Amino acid sequence: MPDKVVTFGEVMMRLSPPGFLRLTQARTLDLTFGGSEANVAVALAQWGVPVEHVTRLPDNDLGQACAQFLRQFGVGLEHVVWGGDRLGLYFLEVGAAQRGGKVIYDRQHSSFATLARGMVDWPAVFADARWFHWSGITPALSANAADVCQEALQVARASGLTISCDLNYRATLWKWGRSAGEVMPELVGYCDVLFGNEENVEQMFGLREPENEDAADRCHRVCKALAERFPKLRTIAFTLRGALSATHNTWSGVLWDGGDFYVAPVYDIPFIVDRVGTGDAFVAGVIYGLLTDRTDLQRALEFAVAAACLKHTIFGDVNQVTVAEVERLMRGEQAGHILR
Amino acid sequence: MPDKVVTFGEVMMRLSPPGFLRLTQARTLDLTFGGSEANVAVALAQWGVPVEHVTRLPDNDLGQACAQFLRQFGVGLEHVVWGGDRLGLYFLEVGAAQRGGKVIYDRQHSSFATLARGMVDWPAVFADARWFHWSGITPALSANAADVCQEALQVARASGLTISCDLNYRATLWKWGRSAGEVMPELVGYCDVLFGNEENVEQMFGLREPENEDAADRCHRVCKALAERFPKLRTIAFTLRGALSATHNTWSGVLWDGGDFYVAPVYDIPFIVDRVGTGDAFVAGVIYGLLTDRTDLQRALEFAVAAACLKHTIFGDVNQVTVAEVERLMRGEQAGHILR
Amino acid sequence: MPDKVVTFGEVMMRLSPPGFLRLTQARTLDLTFGGSEANVAVALAQWGVPVEHVTRLPDNDLGQACAQFLRQFGVGLEHVVWGGDRLGLYFLEVGAAQRGGKVIYDRQHSSFATLARGMVDWPAVFADARWFHWSGITPALSANAADVCQEALQVARASGLTISCDLNYRATLWKWGRSAGEVMPELVGYCDVLFGNEENVEQMFGLREPENEDAADRCHRVCKALAERFPKLRTIAFTLRGALSATHNTWSGVLWDGGDFYVAPVYDIPFIVDRVGTGDAFVAGVIYGLLTDRTDLQRALEFAVAAACLKHTIFGDVNQVTVAEVERLMRGEQAGHILR
Amino acid sequence: MPDKVVTFGEVMMRLSPPGFLRLTQARTLDLTFGGSEANVAVALAQWGVPVEHVTRLPDNDLGQACAQFLRQFGVGLEHVVWGGDRLGLYFLEVGAAQRGGKVIYDRQHSSFATLARGMVDWPAVFADARWFHWSGITPALSANAADVCQEALQVARASGLTISCDLNYRATLWKWGRSAGEVMPELVGYCDVLFGNEENVEQMFGLREPENEDAADRCHRVCKALAERFPKLRTIAFTLRGALSATHNTWSGVLWDGGDFYVAPVYDIPFIVDRVGTGDAFVAGVIYGLLTDRTDLQRALEFAVAAACLKHTIFGDVNQVTVAEVERLMRGEQAGHILR
Amino acid sequence: MPDKVVTFGEVMMRLSPPGFLRLTQARTLDLTFGGSEANVAVALAQWGVPVEHVTRLPDNDLGQACAQFLRQFGVGLEHVVWGGDRLGLYFLEVGAAQRGGKVIYDRQHSSFATLARGMVDWPAVFADARWFHWSGITPALSANAADVCQEALQVARASGLTISCDLNYRATLWKWGRSAGEVMPELVGYCDVLFGNEENVEQMFGLREPENEDAADRCHRVCKALAERFPKLRTIAFTLRGALSATHNTWSGVLWDGGDFYVAPVYDIPFIVDRVGTGDAFVAGVIYGLLTDRTDLQRALEFAVAAACLKHTIFGDVNQVTVAEVERLMRGEQAGHILR
Amino acid sequence: MPDKVVTFGEVMMRLSPPGFLRLTQARTLDLTFGGSEANVAVALAQWGVPVEHVTRLPDNDLGQACAQFLRQFGVGLEHVVWGGDRLGLYFLEVGAAQRGGKVIYDRQHSSFATLARGMVDWPAVFADARWFHWSGITPALSANAADVCQEALQVARASGLTISCDLNYRATLWKWGRSAGEVMPELVGYCDVLFGNEENVEQMFGLREPENEDAADRCHRVCKALAERFPKLRTIAFTLRGALSATHNTWSGVLWDGGDFYVAPVYDIPFIVDRVGTGDAFVAGVIYGLLTDRTDLQRALEFAVAAACLKHTIFGDVNQVTVAEVERLMRGEQAGHILR
Repeated sequence: MPDKVVTFGEVMMRLSPPGFLRLTQARTLDLTFGGSEANVAVALAQWGVPVEHVTRLPDNDLGQACAQFLRQFGVGLEHVVWGGDRLGLYFLEVGAAQRGGKVIYDRQHSSFATLARGMVDWPAVFADARWFHWSGITPALSANAADVCQEALQVARASGLTISCDLNYRATLWKWGRSAGEVMPELVGYCDVLFGNEENVEQMFGLREPENEDAADRCHRVCKALAERFPKLRTIAFTLRGALSATHNTWSGVLWDGGDFYVAPVYDIPFIVDRVGTGDAFVAGVIYGLLTDRTDLQRALEFAVAAACLKHTIFGDVNQVTVAEVERLMRGEQAGHILR
Repeated sequence: MPDKVVTFGEVMMRLSPPGFLRLTQARTLDLTFGGSEANVAVALAQWGVPVEHVTRLPDNDLGQACAQFLRQFGVGLEHVVWGGDRLGLYFLEVGAAQRGGKVIYDRQHSSFATLARGMVDWPAVFADARWFHWSGITPALSANAADVCQEALQVARASGLTISCDLNYRATLWKWGRSAGEVMPELVGYCDVLFGNEENVEQMFGLREPENEDAADRCHRVCKALAERFPKLRTIAFTLRGALSATHNTWSGVLWDGGDFYVAPVYDIPFIVDRVGTGDAFVAGVIYGLLTDRTDLQRALEFAVAAACLKHTIFGDVNQVTVAEVERLMRGEQAGHILR
Repeated sequence: MPDKVVTFGEVMMRLSPPGFLRLTQARTLDLTFGGSEANVAVALAQWGVPVEHVTRLPDNDLGQACAQFLRQFGVGLEHVVWGGDRLGLYFLEVGAAQRGGKVIYDRQHSSFATLARGMVDWPAVFADARWFHWSGITPALSANAADVCQEALQVARASGLTISCDLNYRATLWKWGRSAGEVMPELVGYCDVLFGNEENVEQMFGLREPENEDAADRCHRVCKALAERFPKLRTIAFTLRGALSATHNTWSGVLWDGGDFYVAPVYDIPFIVDRVGTGDAFVAGVIYGLLTDRTDLQRALEFAVAAACLKHTIFGDVNQVTVAEVERLMRGEQAGHILR
Repeated sequence: MPDKVVTFGEVMMRLSPPGFLRLTQARTLDLTFGGSEANVAVALAQWGVPVEHVTRLPDNDLGQACAQFLRQFGVGLEHVVWGGDRLGLYFLEVGAAQRGGKVIYDRQHSSFATLARGMVDWPAVFADARWFHWSGITPALSANAADVCQEALQVARASGLTISCDLNYRATLWKWGRSAGEVMPELVGYCDVLFGNEENVEQMFGLREPENEDAADRCHRVCKALAERFPKLRTIAFTLRGALSATHNTWSGVLWDGGDFYVAPVYDIPFIVDRVGTGDAFVAGVIYGLLTDRTDLQRALEFAVAAACLKHTIFGDVNQVTVAEVERLMRGEQAGHILR
Repeated sequence: MPDKVVTFGEVMMRLSPPGFLRLTQARTLDLTFGGSEANVAVALAQWGVPVEHVTRLPDNDLGQACAQFLRQFGVGLEHVVWGGDRLGLYFLEVGAAQRGGKVIYDRQHSSFATLARGMVDWPAVFADARWFHWSGITPALSANAADVCQEALQVARASGLTISCDLNYRATLWKWGRSAGEVMPELVGYCDVLFGNEENVEQMFGLREPENEDAADRCHRVCKALAERFPKLRTIAFTLRGALSATHNTWSGVLWDGGDFYVAPVYDIPFIVDRVGTGDAFVAGVIYGLLTDRTDLQRALEFAVAAACLKHTIFGDVNQVTVAEVERLMRGEQAGHILR
Repeated sequence: MPDKVVTFGEVMMRLSPPGFLRLTQARTLDLTFGGSEANVAVALAQWGVPVEHVTRLPDNDLGQACAQFLRQFGVGLEHVVWGGDRLGLYFLEVGAAQRGGKVIYDRQHSSFATLARGMVDWPAVFADARWFHWSGITPALSANAADVCQEALQVARASGLTISCDLNYRATLWKWGRSAGEVMPELVGYCDVLFGNEENVEQMFGLREPENEDAADRCHRVCKALAERFPKLRTIAFTLRGALSATHNTWSGVLWDGGDFYVAPVYDIPFIVDRVGTGDAFVAGVIYGLLTDRTDLQRALEFAVAAACLKHTIFGDVNQVTVAEVERLMRGEQAGHILR
């Protein structure tokens, strides 16, 4: 069994109108929980990887409900910092056809955003861990959160952990005074593994390749450019989404290991149940592949792309598919038959 | 801000089984309200146009609920005539793939159908109005309703309002003794602006162009023929629907202003949430365009087609999209990304 | 009116999470009832054919609810054997896109599986009947059930009924000691009419045609091979499914009458509401065709394929469409318009 | 087994907001079916009495759904007259504490209200019947309905059936020109058995006893007065309700057989799930008692009161309790324990 | 018709688990909107009083949904200040029997809490108004809100409006630096009419009467003491609740007009649907009474107590009962009968 | 922190119609999980006691969902034995007023019932445990289960654990060949602590005290009689329920420690949300009391009775209340006020 993975980030209550109702039409909201890094933790935990998620939750029923949500999947919560004023929330309106989905964040002043240096005992957190995963959402939330992120990265590096980062650029965050472009380069400098997509890289680092090339080729060049800028990076994986409509996407990914460049097959997904968390499902897939078989990167990539393809059919932020189900899709078994 | 628009017509309670259940399977029904002309009113009100809807509602909880539904969008109800026996109802079964949607009207003897000449103070209604919109559903309901329609049109013309009509042919209505072909020509004679589609025009006026032509060309010729027959008409707009299946349509429209003929791009809508009210969303879009910028008819048409395209993704009879959302679709922004 | 049809088989309570939730996510389950042979009975009853369904139900509220479900469609339950320990159940997880649907059977030790020879008064059951329909699920359930199946077939043959069988191979059943290959040949030997598909025939009888041929041609050769092995068979009908994804299938069927071979048009079904029971809807369609007009087998086949195509849009195991709706689809009327 | 009972009356779709929502708050409505006489039929059918219900239903999905609802309980529908314009509806708002429940009828112009003399083949209906039950709601609906009621009564009397009537006065009906006081006396003259309560008798026949007496004594005197006026009456049964609040009632009944006067114990019902149809449950209970054991009228009355007491805990118009459950309550077994 | 009433205060989205689920059990939440002062506005608007509600809402879908909620009842929103970061929220867990209800406020940093002096054009707001109502919740929210409250009161007094205040002490608010005891006295000094209960008065002003007296007598003495302290007060009304359990309360109220002291009858409410907003319903009732008939204060009080009694049976924060329904309860008509 | 508690028993999926619907009316079922001993485990885990639950679950989605349910509360599942054919189920119909609740067990042949000696590594299970809790349901299920129960008890005794048993007599179980009276005495002989009620003791051991005494006195005598028969018993606690109706109970308990006899106050619970699991909540309360403060048995008893009183207001089998909430009830704080 692989050693422990530590993930770090905010977990929010997610509230969405049932079906395809608009927020202004809703009289009930479906409730679940999610957050980019916790979504990665849940997927890994379900696949048998020991995971500890570090976050801060308010000491009330909402924080408790959030912890119960994560705990049911076997995610460790030993180092959760209880306190602060409120649980971060977000409202999700699911899109359909030409009407895009929509998120309203209500996470300012949350318990997590007011987490401060010194609240987490990072050396204890990392004591028996092998991997640390964080994302660009955390430093986007507040000066405090960015500060704690750096604190964690310093301890993680000192403890010799593999460090991975998902760029996760969100334009409506990053309001606390410094921009992603100012903050992220230093933090990414700690990382061995990087996740993202072309848009993220351009938005955060200004790296952009000409549009008239093949997407995979462009990604390959971006990977090399990133590696020049962040020499600690050994592995870079990008998702490739074709956003045809709110209910129809194509989906794939690429991976570069400093030498070889791997390209996954493309899935056509004409009916999407829930798009949120698909990037996190991809991240979890790559980490799972790297933890279980470091030698077959093509397989790691294909596992990640297939796992994230399936996430498009799962309600909620977190992926709830088994390794066997992902592998069945990788083998091309027909989903059109009912398994009985 | 443009002057006031007055709409006139029946508003019904709509009852539909949840999801794709058939009526015979339902144990609960989803409840909303709608009616062709009120649907136009709601769209315009949400886009900032002052609107007054004239109708008749029973003085009971159902009539009250209907009024509250309209009032939430800011539709004026000052001239509603309270009374009569019952609120019109309709039952809607949503179709899927090869199974078409289905409507059972239960609107006979409704408060609106028994409205009579003299009940509405039309001069007061039109006092500060600029536009009057009605549809072919009203005269189809009862001799009374046809009579009040004529009464309204006479006052509207005398008051110098722009008058628009949506033909809205419904084969299962028109049971009170006179046919659409007998009644509509006189009433359409009052109009400046006409909405419909090829089938409506053929069903009501017997005008038909050979099938072997391009749809837009056929529409162009039908427009000219209509204008010859109804010389007051300055603007005619048709919707163009490709009804591939209950969940998959193509959608577009054309507009003729007596001189130029405008054609909109075609939208492919492979997953329809709710087809009802899409024609009304188109009508509202054209009226909005004409009210806000009379000089750019191509834009007015494209706004209407895009607004109605989005309506296919909205539960209920009334369109609930903002001007900004329509314009985003007109600019071709990808709906496949979640807006956060 | 045609004479009575008798169907025989287990009816289960079906429990499925709402929407596209996974079983592990569910906090409520949708409840309905179904079973291959009862599904055939319900379709025929709705189309005006007198039907009696023979089964065994526990004498508790669940058995009662099941009986009420069937009785509402007019299925006769006079010969139901009340008793035994439990109602068979199955849990259904609806798939979407690349994630296939999934059934968990919980039907062992059910009242039906413990039915024994002598419990049903078959001569009385068949007294005024013309047709007996059973399926390969019954002998798969238990030695007892297989035994009663044979008992019924002997009496049915002696009573001169037309006997039809749907092969219905389920790999997760057939656990009681003998395999389908050992048991089915004798039982199929009693039959005049056979339903199935290529996979069933291969799984049960080892008959297989080379893959490089056209599907219809392969089916034709399989039919001839079956007829050689089971000389009583006069009619064989196969379904042809293209299982593109959990929400997108193509659908057709073929029929062989010992001489001519009939092929139906192919339907493309890009949005499936409920796949369960589509094969049963096909069976009911063919039986209905043979009962009402034995001379037009092309029409019987096309009716069956169209009826089963519509079943894909109906929630639950049983088909709930009228003859008129099936015929409308056969005529190619557009489902994209709302019927009002 | 007792001979067949025939019931006659309108069946409506009932629409009610979930929980304790007001009609103006509802976004979904719960759907069921009911009507005073059909409610009696369903109770009897569940208790093993063969019942045929005569009514008129529109030939559309709503009429079909209504028929399926009744058929599931085994109520015979052989003599239903299909046709007419619409299914009668009613909207029910459930009360709580000091806020009373509320019904909005929408049954004018229904298929049943437009039933006419000659549409029902009464001699065929009554061919194998022993008992005919109708209620004061039918003649209240329309001149037509009153006329058909008389037609039925004449044939029923000629056929020698026992005839029972539930007075069922509804102030908001009786709008077609004649009052209950004008119409009912003649119709009640045909009856052997009468059901009602003190208010009904006063409202319809002006019979009233002084308030300062015990309720049972008052009822006894009213029974005698009724028997003088309607000499064919052999049995009169009254319900006694203490309407403390919308969720708390007391409940009992009395029965007079021309000689003895029977009084039932009083049930205190502090939490009512659904009050509608409790009177009909009482009627069914008395009829069941008279059909199964004519000699023990005290038991018949107590069965009826207990059955109707249980109806207060059942959602919907129709009572769904078994004879065994009613008898368990009659024996005083504690409901506070869970039966496992 | 009485002149316009202006209400001022925060409106929140309220999220509550369905039925009696705990917050930690919820997978869906029921959504509605409310706020003490807006609840008063909605009640008055439904009773025909022109009302304008002044608040601040974020310019997003949640603010829009809130505005639509209020607008449906006819509450004027002309002076709403759009802007700020977020809509205030609160989570409500409904209690039952011995388990009390529970509110988690999530309203810090809301658009309303960050409202600032100068944002509202108070002279315009009060131009055609007669009455201004505010509550102790507003100054409790933030220094800003307290400041704007004072600003409003100064203009209202200068404009000659009647000013009423509901003390509404909430222990979990008042966190911004000054206590209720420090802030409220000055603000209450502007008021003509005061609403509250014994606990509020003690918590805010330290006024307390000995417990061994009758509750009404204690209230009378408290009223006199308050009037000495706040000489502008002409009318004081207190609610009297007996909080027996979460589902069972008794309910009454008293009113003092500087001279006479009025006591209402006590209602026993053994089954409470929704306790939230009952105090606001009482306030609305008194204001309605004072606006419509200043001379009959006993009636005004009884109307208020009866209206608030009914509120206990209505889901949501706002009272949705008609004047006729309140008067029916005042007359003692039995709620145990269904109104049909 | 107290040492670990081990609980052992079957966990079932529980399926119940929403609201007060009967099973025959349901179209959806609410899903949760529970089992007497696991219910105790969940309560203890929430109160901070380390708990390990030993059971057997099928290795499918239903077993997985059950494990996730328990894991969310922090119950340890390290020693769960995965395998067997099916998850035990039970169907629950919630009663109201005079209609009692009803359970249909469907747990035969479950994974737990087919657990066999040798499958659980009991020495490992008990390695760091201090307390072992089981109930009379386990030996009632099957010969196998009774056998494993004995196996566990032998190891637990040998390991020096405190052993507690809840008698939990269920008449519809105990079908495998031996009666409770034959099996339980030996197993209870291992126990230090016993839970039950008067009925259980009579049903299992034939001990009965005269009815004409006070209930507490009777219980006291029963305790002494039990202690004579089972000399290892140091503590006996009984629940005292007054089962007035399905929605109204009184509730209390007594405890005997071999010397003193403790009696708790009686709670009146006029509105019950969910009665299932209240006995288990009492058991958990006593164990919690004994673990945390062995010296104050009156307090332990009162805690248990208050915790179980609150359970009556919580949906599902498991109690979800905090220690603080229980203590608030013990202090008599009013539930009629909303906590904000």
